[in-house]
Amino acid sequence: MANESVAYDKDAVREVLDKARAEGRESLTAPEGRRVCEAYGIPTPGEGLAGTADEAVRLAGELGGPVAMKIVSPDILHKTEAGGVKIGISGDDAVRGAFDEIIANAKAYNAEASIDGIQVQQMLSGGQEVIIGATTDPTFGKVIIFGLGGVLVEVLKDVTFRLAPVDHATAISMLDGIKAAEILRGVRGGEAVDADALADVITRLSDLVTDFPQISEFDLNPVFARPDGASAADVRILLDNTDHAEPVRYSQEEILATMSRMMRPKAVAVIGASAENGKIGNSVMKNLINGGYAGEIYPINPKADEILGRKAYKNIGDVPGDVDVAVFTVPAKFVPQALREVGEKNIPAAVLIPSGFAETGNHELQDEIVKIAREGGVRLLGPNIYGYYYTPQDLCATFCTPYDVKGGVALTSQSGGIGMAILGFSRTSKMGVSAIVGLGNKSDLDEDDLLTYFEQDPDTNIVAMHLEDLKDGRSFVEAAQRITKKKPVVVLKAGRTALGAKAASSHTGALAGDDKVYDDILKQSGVVRAYSLNDMLEFARGIPVLPTPKGENVVIITGAGGSGVLLSDAVVENGLSLMEMPKDLDEAFKAFIPPFGASGNPIDITGGEPPSTYEATIRLGLEDDRIHALILGYWHTIVTPPMVFAELTARVVAEARAKGIEKPVVASLAGDVEVEEASDYLYQHGVVAYPYTTEKPVAVLGAKYRWARSAGLI
Amino acid sequence: MANESVAYDKDAVREVLDKARAEGRESLTAPEGRRVCEAYGIPTPGEGLAGTADEAVRLAGELGGPVAMKIVSPDILHKTEAGGVKIGISGDDAVRGAFDEIIANAKAYNAEASIDGIQVQQMLSGGQEVIIGATTDPTFGKVIIFGLGGVLVEVLKDVTFRLAPVDHATAISMLDGIKAAEILRGVRGGEAVDADALADVITRLSDLVTDFPQISEFDLNPVFARPDGASAADVRILLDNTDHAEPVRYSQEEILATMSRMMRPKAVAVIGASAENGKIGNSVMKNLINGGYAGEIYPINPKADEILGRKAYKNIGDVPGDVDVAVFTVPAKFVPQALREVGEKNIPAAVLIPSGFAETGNHELQDEIVKIAREGGVRLLGPNIYGYYYTPQDLCATFCTPYDVKGGVALTSQSGGIGMAILGFSRTSKMGVSAIVGLGNKSDLDEDDLLTYFEQDPDTNIVAMHLEDLKDGRSFVEAAQRITKKKPVVVLKAGRTALGAKAASSHTGALAGDDKVYDDILKQSGVVRAYSLNDMLEFARGIPVLPTPKGENVVIITGAGGSGVLLSDAVVENGLSLMEMPKDLDEAFKAFIPPFGASGNPIDITGGEPPSTYEATIRLGLEDDRIHALILGYWHTIVTPPMVFAELTARVVAEARAKGIEKPVVASLAGDVEVEEASDYLYQHGVVAYPYTTEKPVAVLGAKYRWARSAGLI
Repeated sequence: MANESVAYDKDAVREVLDKARAEGRESLTAPEGRRVCEAYGIPTPGEGLAGTADEAVRLAGELGGPVAMKIVSPDILHKTEAGGVKIGISGDDAVRGAFDEIIANAKAYNAEASIDGIQVQQMLSGGQEVIIGATTDPTFGKVIIFGLGGVLVEVLKDVTFRLAPVDHATAISMLDGIKAAEILRGVRGGEAVDADALADVITRLSDLVTDFPQISEFDLNPVFARPDGASAADVRILLDNTDHAEPVRYSQEEILATMSRMMRPKAVAVIGASAENGKIGNSVMKNLINGGYAGEIYPINPKADEILGRKAYKNIGDVPGDVDVAVFTVPAKFVPQALREVGEKNIPAAVLIPSGFAETGNHELQDEIVKIAREGGVRLLGPNIYGYYYTPQDLCATFCTPYDVKGGVALTSQSGGIGMAILGFSRTSKMGVSAIVGLGNKSDLDEDDLLTYFEQDPDTNIVAMHLEDLKDGRSFVEAAQRITKKKPVVVLKAGRTALGAKAASSHTGALAGDDKVYDDILKQSGVVRAYSLNDMLEFARGIPVLPTPKGENVVIITGAGGSGVLLSDAVVENGLSLMEMPKDLDEAFKAFIPPFGASGNPIDITGGEPPSTYEATIRLGLEDDRIHALILGYWHTIVTPPMVFAELTARVVAEARAKGIEKPVVASLAGDVEVEEASDYLYQHGVVAYPYTTEKPVAVLGAKYRWARSAGLI
Repeated sequence: MANESVAYDKDAVREVLDKARAEGRESLTAPEGRRVCEAYGIPTPGEGLAGTADEAVRLAGELGGPVAMKIVSPDILHKTEAGGVKIGISGDDAVRGAFDEIIANAKAYNAEASIDGIQVQQMLSGGQEVIIGATTDPTFGKVIIFGLGGVLVEVLKDVTFRLAPVDHATAISMLDGIKAAEILRGVRGGEAVDADALADVITRLSDLVTDFPQISEFDLNPVFARPDGASAADVRILLDNTDHAEPVRYSQEEILATMSRMMRPKAVAVIGASAENGKIGNSVMKNLINGGYAGEIYPINPKADEILGRKAYKNIGDVPGDVDVAVFTVPAKFVPQALREVGEKNIPAAVLIPSGFAETGNHELQDEIVKIAREGGVRLLGPNIYGYYYTPQDLCATFCTPYDVKGGVALTSQSGGIGMAILGFSRTSKMGVSAIVGLGNKSDLDEDDLLTYFEQDPDTNIVAMHLEDLKDGRSFVEAAQRITKKKPVVVLKAGRTALGAKAASSHTGALAGDDKVYDDILKQSGVVRAYSLNDMLEFARGIPVLPTPKGENVVIITGAGGSGVLLSDAVVENGLSLMEMPKDLDEAFKAFIPPFGASGNPIDITGGEPPSTYEATIRLGLEDDRIHALILGYWHTIVTPPMVFAELTARVVAEARAKGIEKPVVASLAGDVEVEEASDYLYQHGVVAYPYTTEKPVAVLGAKYRWARSAGLI
């Protein structure tokens, strides 16, 4: 993964790290850190190790300017505390004096300390102090950090993260990714820093920790960023020489082989099927049958011969043909034995509805079933889930009520409660769904397996996921980066505040990472993050309704000036750009609206206008190539009632589509209750429309744009 | 308004300002600035004016340490450009050299310049650089600014504003009001700055600009804030000696006298009443009659004898008895004459529905009617509005459809479109409303008049306002500070982004101020700001439903762990505090929930629990005095269906209220579509509940808390 065009001296680094390991150290000395930096071409200030005061004087003379002097001893970790650091030393006498004083201090601090000498270092100054570092995140592994240095930014926490390895373009994006980025570009007549030099330091550091994963933390702080280069004034390197188990990973082919049989099974077995109402094993059977699933259904129950008209089997091993997925509805304690039999029957996937595993503190039982599954070649969904829906197969393998509005939206949730909210929202909003999948404890199958399946699933065109943690952040990012090039992925990451994270960890035993790490890396992976449950649901519903915009020029056409102002607010908040209106286009719009209507953008057609004004301006907005997306603000009047507006808008949009003009159109409807029906009508006709809110339609448009940009489509 | 305990030398300031005025200057020289600071006890560094090099040497010696030297000349404004500034000068020779060089530079820069001498100033350093200033905002008048100094904060714009005059407590709140406030309190072992000294500078500056309004801008930048004091290193004062017309203001008694007759009229005249369907004058008549208004209705129409069964009059002057309000439905051009007649008839209020005034560029006509109204003693609502509703009187003086769900919510909107959204939302959510008022162009009556009325209106217990600008920010703040002590006020300020503000100004000709000024001053005035239309509406609906909390301890009780995590996120985002659970209380909750349920807060009762578990835990949450507010997370299961949960919750809450226990309870319902009915039921029974969202119920609770805190109730 290393930047192959750069010659790195890996042997030199290996030697330093091996020595530290041999000595049982978990940190490197400053000269070692410097050697590591040099080996990977990370610029550091001139320096040398002085064994005597004379050597120190000579070194200081060679370096020029004031120097910093620091004790070098494997036995003194806290150099400042030991009186082992002097800075800003100029002149031979001062250097000599500092040398003697540091040695004396060090001996007083620890008489037994072995002293290698004193590091004499060129003092850097000028330029902007920044921090560049690497850390090992429990979720994502090696992560690169960039931020401005100094106490102020430490308080404001203005830093940005990326998954390593980081290439040059990504490194440049980190410089732009902090709030105070403007400072790097030069403010108040200050010169811009050398962005390429900083990006170079970032990529080299990234390559280094990628090549040597035993480097657990790496701080270059401060790095002085100047208009003509950058160098790291201080280096701190921590090691973790323990072996970490790699997460179990499967190839895409393996994942697809299993997932395809699970999602499109020819035969489903229900372990613990029951004829008794109210039992989960009964609900699942009913839902499979009533949902219209056309494949074989095998109830497994040691005490029954037949359940709901289907022949029952005592054991899964008794089932005559192949089975693609086994849905478990038995209590937790019966799962291990049944799972063994599922493995013996060569069933590739088990869906574990029962609870009573890690989420109740029973980690042993969960570990046991994971082991059994691995030995038997069975992949597990759950445990502790509601099951899953897959509408292309009319498959409703859950204990909830069936859902049958088919469409392209696949939804997943870590939590059962959120799964139920997904179901209710889908039903009430008539959202076309391909899949709803519960992930629960994620003992095995998780988000990246599902993304790998949905990526190639012709029946899915968007994925929305609720998650509290990622078991394997790196696999998630890999899968997400692949699929988001083709299909949008919306993620609601719960536990994003400190308190929320605490609740998450008491709930699933998951260790929720710092939210800023998630935020930056989710962005890097191309997903659209939703910051609320309702946003996730509305984005899932709205994004596939909207065509992908071809550019950034957004135009607002509004009957209510007041809505225009609020819609403009929403445009800015959602990172969209109101088009600067070309003169000819401005004139063209003006021709349709009263002289006192506001030209420019928003285009305020004014409130008392007839349907023809809405129609003419919307048509112009659709037909002019320079405009890429439309936001409509409708104002309920007697002259243009809600349904009249809805029908004319739907018609004009359909006419444009018939001509091959595909642009996203969203609408905010301000008016009496009839605007609810009008909004529904518009939504069913490809216009994302809401009553009583100016913010929601623009937020959905903004989400579509975020995806289109990350997929490189605009 | 000045801080009376401090002896200010007003005469000294007046003398400086008068001199500058006499000389036609709009800025003060540095020594003048210093004199002004001294007169108000604002500490500045030691300094003096040197006429000769010898004097400069003597002064520098007296001041001690390095000095800054600056040319003082009324003819040289850009001192640095003129080579007239030297800093960090130490030692007699250096001071002498600097003196000569500055004089030479100044003469080279402008040979004609009259030179007063050279200012020799003690150089301050150490401590934290902050900026303290005052400016004259077009909406709010004198406004005080506080922020950290330095280029970084300039980029991050971390400043806070307050309306002057500012008292000591408010000044202290400014120090806490910036994002980087932590720096002032001391970070990384740094000492805290002297907050009282900084607050003292702020209040003195505030008193100064309050006493001398001709000071239009005042910058103390930087002020060095040290652990043992603060002093201003640089002073910049700009003057505006032009006379500004004070906005017309009325006393509270005058406002109430008019507003009471307008809102509770015994007789209403409709100028331009019509029998013809589709005419606005017909709609208004119908709405008045069909809305059930019990007072007299006088149609005014020169061509009719009777309209909708009511005797019509040719002119308003012909009406026999007193009239309290005249509703105008005639075209703009007929307004002036009719308004004159309204004045002659001594009608105190005119409601101007017609458009065609400032909003269409016709400022002259608007100015004319304002003048006529003032001469006639008539207050104007509008023009360019839908009219107004006042349900306690069954009064529907609008051309929209009647609204009759009575309740305590008063809503106002500057925009007609937003007014229609208010109407539709109210109807669909069955919100109990006292008034809906259109403000339109606000040629006269505006938000502060309405606040003054609603403050004492027994039928109103909350006010929600949509606004794009304030004509008189100071009157608004005064009225808002008064009413918000008793009743919550929610404000949606549109045009809050740069783009939004642009749209506002093209729409109403209003000059939208910088949003941060609005944000801070709205907070200072005690209003709850909503940042979206839907939030404004939901806050208006929900806040009066919830009792006022008595403390900050919020507890989440949830059936779905996943909802618990999202609800915790929302708690943090809304500035609420999850209660640290005392051991005994934790044990008490644990007694009701399964052993694997999560204790602490959120209390995760787990998903499979029967109604009795919800009931027992909710009751305990209500009855324990240490808990001040409850957030419920419901998870739809067969064991506890939605309506069962809704009914038991409503019952337990009602039982507690019967015992005098009043706590806000909000709920998020995750489940299939039945949760919609359950949420409605809960809302009707005093629990603010929503389906498919974890964020909205917590946002409403957060809004209630914001108001309760600002009113000093917790």
